[in-house]
Amino acid sequence: MKQKSFAKMPCSVARAVEAIGDGWSMLVIRDLFYGAGRFEDLLEHTGIARNILASRLRKLVESGVVEKYVSSDGGKRQKYRLTDKGLDLFPVLIALMQWGDRWETGAQGPTLRMVDRERGAEVATIDVRDAQGQSVGPQDVLVQPGPGATRAIHKRFDKVFAEGLAHNHSEERTA
Amino acid sequence: MKQKSFAKMPCSVARAVEAIGDGWSMLVIRDLFYGAGRFEDLLEHTGIARNILASRLRKLVESGVVEKYVSSDGGKRQKYRLTDKGLDLFPVLIALMQWGDRWETGAQGPTLRMVDRERGAEVATIDVRDAQGQSVGPQDVLVQPGPGATRAIHKRFDKVFAEGLAHNHSEERTA
Repeated sequence: MKQKSFAKMPCSVARAVEAIGDGWSMLVIRDLFYGAGRFEDLLEHTGIARNILASRLRKLVESGVVEKYVSSDGGKRQKYRLTDKGLDLFPVLIALMQWGDRWETGAQGPTLRMVDRERGAEVATIDVRDAQGQSVGPQDVLVQPGPGATRAIHKRFDKVFAEGLAHNHSEERTA
Repeated sequence: MKQKSFAKMPCSVARAVEAIGDGWSMLVIRDLFYGAGRFEDLLEHTGIARNILASRLRKLVESGVVEKYVSSDGGKRQKYRLTDKGLDLFPVLIALMQWGDRWETGAQGPTLRMVDRERGAEVATIDVRDAQGQSVGPQDVLVQPGPGATRAIHKRFDKVFAEGLAHNHSEERTA
């Protein structure tokens, strides 16, 4: 992934992808959400090579998603954990996990369940809602220039994105 | 990103990352959600090199996220659109976009807004909810072995993930 060219793009999705990093980084973030914190545990669970794990952790610290801290358990070991910015990726993790559960799972079913601590019940399927709290799908929305949009974005949106994706899905499938 | 090693991992997050592909693929998926469909529009808007765009589209078609179709507008052109599996990535897109809006946006504010077609109001902030519909954060949940968990997963979870991440966040920050 050509990371460096993403940070300057005038797009929150591109910048989010840049800050998260690549697939390995996403697995590190996943394991930090699950509760891992020690380098050796991350190494064992993700299956990442030692040098790649070190570089991904360094990059995640640089982008403010992960922080190092000294834990008092087990003799003042250095550990890693998500910052507030990293913890705020929780909906991204859950959305990816649930999508994988639905589309990329074998016959045995999902390997993991995310449950709430209090009741042990699985968290609900995450969905997108409108301002009134009603579920909306991709055909119910439009993307529009926001307050930080440049002139170029305004122009492009008038041309390509004005109708949203709905019209692309009104025709027959002819794979 | 070492894609090939992710598909066999017993983890929905890893498999989702594998199916989506890399950062460029995510930008293609983004633009398909926004309403682009023609190769040239994707090329112009993502800023991807022609050969990279072609390879990412091919991979997305292979993983069942994108399909080709022949559009009747403008003279039977071949276009691309999201499949049902691809459309189901909507919460992933919105979660990434909103996180980028919060953490990676300049002083001018977000470049884009996702609004509902009917009212023009911005979609709500996506969040994770428990089975009762209450918002839950990462400290409120635990990950547990699911129906497809192997013996190795059970063992690892007892050891490393039994407590979740909350205990990593109860100590002082010592960056």
